[in-house]
Amino acid sequence: MTLFSFSTSTINTSKLVFKTPTNFSAKDGERCCQGFLCASAGCLQNQPFSFKSCSLSADLQCNKLFCHAKPLYLINSRKGSSCYSLDVKESSAIPTDRKFQLDDVIESQQFDRDILNDIFEVAREMENIEKNSPGSKILQGYLMATLFYEPSTRTRLSFESAMKRLGGEVLTTENAREFSSAAKGETLEDTIRTVEGYSDIIVMRHFESGAARRAASTASIPVINAGDGPGQHPTQALLDVYTIAREIGRLDGIRLALVGDLANGRTVRSLAYLIAMYKDVKIYFVSPDVVKMKDDIKDHLTSMGVEWEESTDLLEVASKCDVVYQTRIQRERFGERIDLYEAARGKYIVDQKVLDVLPKHAVIMHPLPRLDEITTDVDADPRAAYFRQAKNGLYIRMALLKLLLLGW
Amino acid sequence: MTLFSFSTSTINTSKLVFKTPTNFSAKDGERCCQGFLCASAGCLQNQPFSFKSCSLSADLQCNKLFCHAKPLYLINSRKGSSCYSLDVKESSAIPTDRKFQLDDVIESQQFDRDILNDIFEVAREMENIEKNSPGSKILQGYLMATLFYEPSTRTRLSFESAMKRLGGEVLTTENAREFSSAAKGETLEDTIRTVEGYSDIIVMRHFESGAARRAASTASIPVINAGDGPGQHPTQALLDVYTIAREIGRLDGIRLALVGDLANGRTVRSLAYLIAMYKDVKIYFVSPDVVKMKDDIKDHLTSMGVEWEESTDLLEVASKCDVVYQTRIQRERFGERIDLYEAARGKYIVDQKVLDVLPKHAVIMHPLPRLDEITTDVDADPRAAYFRQAKNGLYIRMALLKLLLLGW
Amino acid sequence: MTLFSFSTSTINTSKLVFKTPTNFSAKDGERCCQGFLCASAGCLQNQPFSFKSCSLSADLQCNKLFCHAKPLYLINSRKGSSCYSLDVKESSAIPTDRKFQLDDVIESQQFDRDILNDIFEVAREMENIEKNSPGSKILQGYLMATLFYEPSTRTRLSFESAMKRLGGEVLTTENAREFSSAAKGETLEDTIRTVEGYSDIIVMRHFESGAARRAASTASIPVINAGDGPGQHPTQALLDVYTIAREIGRLDGIRLALVGDLANGRTVRSLAYLIAMYKDVKIYFVSPDVVKMKDDIKDHLTSMGVEWEESTDLLEVASKCDVVYQTRIQRERFGERIDLYEAARGKYIVDQKVLDVLPKHAVIMHPLPRLDEITTDVDADPRAAYFRQAKNGLYIRMALLKLLLLGW
Repeated sequence: MTLFSFSTSTINTSKLVFKTPTNFSAKDGERCCQGFLCASAGCLQNQPFSFKSCSLSADLQCNKLFCHAKPLYLINSRKGSSCYSLDVKESSAIPTDRKFQLDDVIESQQFDRDILNDIFEVAREMENIEKNSPGSKILQGYLMATLFYEPSTRTRLSFESAMKRLGGEVLTTENAREFSSAAKGETLEDTIRTVEGYSDIIVMRHFESGAARRAASTASIPVINAGDGPGQHPTQALLDVYTIAREIGRLDGIRLALVGDLANGRTVRSLAYLIAMYKDVKIYFVSPDVVKMKDDIKDHLTSMGVEWEESTDLLEVASKCDVVYQTRIQRERFGERIDLYEAARGKYIVDQKVLDVLPKHAVIMHPLPRLDEITTDVDADPRAAYFRQAKNGLYIRMALLKLLLLGW
Repeated sequence: MTLFSFSTSTINTSKLVFKTPTNFSAKDGERCCQGFLCASAGCLQNQPFSFKSCSLSADLQCNKLFCHAKPLYLINSRKGSSCYSLDVKESSAIPTDRKFQLDDVIESQQFDRDILNDIFEVAREMENIEKNSPGSKILQGYLMATLFYEPSTRTRLSFESAMKRLGGEVLTTENAREFSSAAKGETLEDTIRTVEGYSDIIVMRHFESGAARRAASTASIPVINAGDGPGQHPTQALLDVYTIAREIGRLDGIRLALVGDLANGRTVRSLAYLIAMYKDVKIYFVSPDVVKMKDDIKDHLTSMGVEWEESTDLLEVASKCDVVYQTRIQRERFGERIDLYEAARGKYIVDQKVLDVLPKHAVIMHPLPRLDEITTDVDADPRAAYFRQAKNGLYIRMALLKLLLLGW
Repeated sequence: MTLFSFSTSTINTSKLVFKTPTNFSAKDGERCCQGFLCASAGCLQNQPFSFKSCSLSADLQCNKLFCHAKPLYLINSRKGSSCYSLDVKESSAIPTDRKFQLDDVIESQQFDRDILNDIFEVAREMENIEKNSPGSKILQGYLMATLFYEPSTRTRLSFESAMKRLGGEVLTTENAREFSSAAKGETLEDTIRTVEGYSDIIVMRHFESGAARRAASTASIPVINAGDGPGQHPTQALLDVYTIAREIGRLDGIRLALVGDLANGRTVRSLAYLIAMYKDVKIYFVSPDVVKMKDDIKDHLTSMGVEWEESTDLLEVASKCDVVYQTRIQRERFGERIDLYEAARGKYIVDQKVLDVLPKHAVIMHPLPRLDEITTDVDADPRAAYFRQAKNGLYIRMALLKLLLLGW
């Protein structure tokens, strides 16, 4: 738990972006005294206040941790109309063995190579947690709210399994879009302020890009983005990179083929972004013309010194890759142009012919669900890594839940 | 656990409204002997029977606690065709330290001032329960069924969080209206008889007024009404009163403004009803003409000696109130008269101007969701109590679950 | 846990139908060494391999238990390109006190009389499990996925209650048909391969006959069929037979009337099938002409030496039966012929007149939901067993979950 020092100056609520791994329940004088101060419900803001003169006692009911809607340190005083406010400043009391503070998981860009390695290390530990071992109970007493504004059963089950595998509990809303309050016009911010009162962490899927960031900046508890529309799906990106590391044994020097719908595929874009942080990476783009990788990612790769090339020959690419990352051509992206969809979807199929040229150490990945872009006879090949990849999603999510709720 | 004495007279099943805080599982002779008697599956009712002559043994299989559909004390005998029934009468074996027995939570009217104070005392304890403390496990092993015939995610999550914060478990039906059985024409009573077999307490939301009472009179386990149509929503009423007590520090002498849709608002009607039990209360009604408070509540207040007045000047009222309770104008109540709706909704807004005149110790409450009847700049003011109010719903529900399942 | 011996011959994956009651997490060398062998991700199948020469060490990362899509014993080696495979053969290391290995619950036909008796014995133990007793925690740490492709709240709640009453946890998908992946065209097999990564047992309801079998043959964890379309609903059949045994005290020599929709009723067909395994059984079919019992069941009964007859006189049949099993006439089976439906549904009603002739020891059963085919005044009679029958479903499902996850 991060500690705070207090000065006698005025409060700056805009700086109060503090998320505690343990839940504060500063409801009584004793706990409040550790560093939280009090303001009556009816106080004026910005009154000068000296911490040292504050003696929390019976008539200083510290009954609210929340204040100013996003309230973290102010506690209502019941001492008549006297009134306090305070300035809060982070001290350096962060334990030295804590690698970093992970507050929310919102987008791939928030991670650097070191953080990824740290997360992967925890995920690796998660793989070894046995049923009913102490490790399987580390989140006992914690409550996760899965706030899904659009259904995504696979992702939801993966998160809920992760939470329960660590002893935590879950509140589920499978279709929050029809959340009665949302339907009545409540803002996302108001919903978050309510839900954060019921839980310790929010896993949110939303249909609007940027919704996760809005939720995180409102919530005083951690928020994980489980996909926000065309925006980000950072846990998918993390599990993809983790799977490459687990399957191939390294990330530097990886030769990666991204196949299929590269224009609309959120996963391949995020994966390209993350893998660019490693050395000597080579990426091949193999896609129908109508769904080619966009220039922003290509430019980013170039600026990061990542070698990339476009190809129309899947077999040739497969013969020299470590990873073939296949994706589904999404019909819904083609609108009424079913003809274009049909042409695109059949163009690059991973089948026995691809296996025949694929190096023995290489693997085939897919974010799932798959239709016929990988034929089912490929499943029996040990290089078919996509179901292991799905399972890795569980370990990554376990790792993130642990890191956000307990820290390192 | 309430004990029973037995006479040799006949049974009167209509009197059997007994709900045990601990679950009876009188499946074997030993436990039955404590006060439960036996009747063969094929017995005739109303045969004379002497308790003392009953020796429960191997061939008297006490395999059913239930009998006569709402069966509580009769247990099937397998001893040929001999047959028993009994009269059951409550003894005075209620522990003296139990304040009262709370069997169900159906409507606001069931509470008096003393019971409210007792519930609030327990709610206050709930605020202090820490993660993984003994208090957080008091409902371990208990199972709550949330039987929601219409969606209300906020209320459902609040109850489920309350149950889980106390170590209990939850069975969820988010849309019981499409419960396959209900859709096939099953009665509510039959559904309740099935669900009570799977759980220890039922939290029900229904679209029909009176449904909660029907469920409670059918169920042998406690039922909490989480809103039944235009009828009651007693836990909302409790949390509203609790919030006033917590924020202002008292209930006697409170000056309360009820603002917005007072004609259709279930919450303001219940709140007015409950607050009338306290002394020297003054209520101001501030609402557009089309949604004024109805006469039944006004008459009730008058009969209880509660002073009330109607006003069209929100600022003037706000300047002399302890609590401004704002509500949403519900569009769905206006049918096609969108013009009336638009006129009504914009009339009384809580904004900075209201804050400017509101006493420093006063608070603004709202049952949520809010649209624009409270402007978002109000949120930052410490007197904006509505998110704290939502959180109080958690504590009230924790208290009720504890009281119904464990008693005092 | 079943043990395995290994030979140096080649692997036969088709034989690998092995489900462990405890979950394998052979992620590290130590555990793998107990009997699991390794194959590199890129290995060729069917290479000769000697178990004894395999020393699992740091560079033999046993990171995957899964291989060949349905992977159970092969573990990836990272030792260059060397490659192993193996033949797996069940040893006789099955504990002698284990009566039999229950792998999945797919259809009534999989049970014989001995297995039924064993299951009923466990169900009987389940009736006596008390809250917070050791017995109520035997499935702690286990995770059940309820994968319902069509809603069946009653069945779902019964399974989820069973799991939670034993200390287990649940992942719920109330409407898997709209599972985003299924909606996008994912096969059932792919969905199962994903979900089995998140859970320890799958309870599946599906709209297609045979779906449960497909799921079970894909999954490496146990699968319970909670109804697959017009196909099977084996747990209902088990609870029906269990209820007869509990209510009447025996199954041999039982006189059973099956009433109502015998043509379409999945439950009566399964019940007739199971009861035929007992001695001296007599079955009466009482149904409107349009929904008579089909010849396949009649022929089966005859071949099993079960006496049966058709009757149009419910009262006469009821007067000489041990069990009257009433069913609902399903409107949906009649299409537009509402006239036929109306005629059929009113024909055989269980009411006071039936009670008047029913033997005192006999019982009335019904799979629920009921409409008016049993009048509500019957509920108060101790011979009305249908709500006890529903409760027995809980005990049967608790027993199956225990047997599938822990064994005897």
